[in-house]
Amino acid sequence: ESRLPGFATHQVGVAGAVLDETSGKVLVVQDKNKTKNAWKFPGGLSDPGENIGATAVREVFEETGVRAEFRSLLSIRQQHNHPGAFGMSDMYIICRLRPLTFDINFCRQECLRCEWMEVAKLAETDSTTPITSRIARLLLYGSREGFDKIDLSMEELPAVYSGMFYQLYHRALPEAYRRV
Amino acid sequence: ESRLPGFATHQVGVAGAVLDETSGKVLVVQDKNKTKNAWKFPGGLSDPGENIGATAVREVFEETGVRAEFRSLLSIRQQHNHPGAFGMSDMYIICRLRPLTFDINFCRQECLRCEWMEVAKLAETDSTTPITSRIARLLLYGSREGFDKIDLSMEELPAVYSGMFYQLYHRALPEAYRRV
Repeated sequence: ESRLPGFATHQVGVAGAVLDETSGKVLVVQDKNKTKNAWKFPGGLSDPGENIGATAVREVFEETGVRAEFRSLLSIRQQHNHPGAFGMSDMYIICRLRPLTFDINFCRQECLRCEWMEVAKLAETDSTTPITSRIARLLLYGSREGFDKIDLSMEELPAVYSGMFYQLYHRALPEAYRRV
Repeated sequence: ESRLPGFATHQVGVAGAVLDETSGKVLVVQDKNKTKNAWKFPGGLSDPGENIGATAVREVFEETGVRAEFRSLLSIRQQHNHPGAFGMSDMYIICRLRPLTFDINFCRQECLRCEWMEVAKLAETDSTTPITSRIARLLLYGSREGFDKIDLSMEELPAVYSGMFYQLYHRALPEAYRRV
């Protein structure tokens, strides 16, 4: 893409919806200071140069003590004049993660509560944010009818010039369409 | 999300894959200076405060003279140390658009060529970039088996505090899951 001059206009935040497929429970937190009594997925801002999936995994661990691995990208929100972004825009991405450990040891500075909650309960409760509620319903749909219904899978592709790799997220392509 | 301090780390670029469902053709351009002889979707950087879909529609019109409307989000690419972003990161989003006009009047400063090309041909040609080829295959899949297979639909939701609205993109949620 020929798009000069470039300058950064967005901060990128990533949350991890860590879903245990066996129990149907997802890891949720309540912030200590903001959005009180609202269950949310743990998450935070990407460090410079950090991949989306890596941010989700790191933030989940820092906030909750739970180790998890990236599975897919579920949603993107774009918001302008974001209060936490000094008037810049915010891109907020929610990923689906798979838990590798289950013991909670949450960060008392950031969180008031942290627990494994049934996805169906999170999808029903009023004690949450609109986006968390929406993604809880998406997770419920995926749990019942297959995660391929809700996932954007990630693949690394080579950059044309630099020889570096980048991450591309889109709906999974059936084998028949991978080579046309 | 409690994510302070925030600062912008990403530029956002958006391309529009303008697909005419009747003819099975998609609008493609060849850059004048970069990636020569490579067919790509028209696109460019978001202006500050501009929504993803609005960037796609605007850039398509500026480069090709074709009017189109936003349909869905297809893919997201994250790339760090982007050459055009002064060492910052780049988020490159491809949207599916529907054409409202068909006459091409392309920008001679930016483009060498511009045409309506059959999606099947774009999916097969070597004269393209890896990401364009991939998205052409995704469009072919969507054309044949339903765009619901490839689309992330957009919805506006109210922000918790500001009363402003933001755009949320995810897989369409069946009616049964919209109210649990």
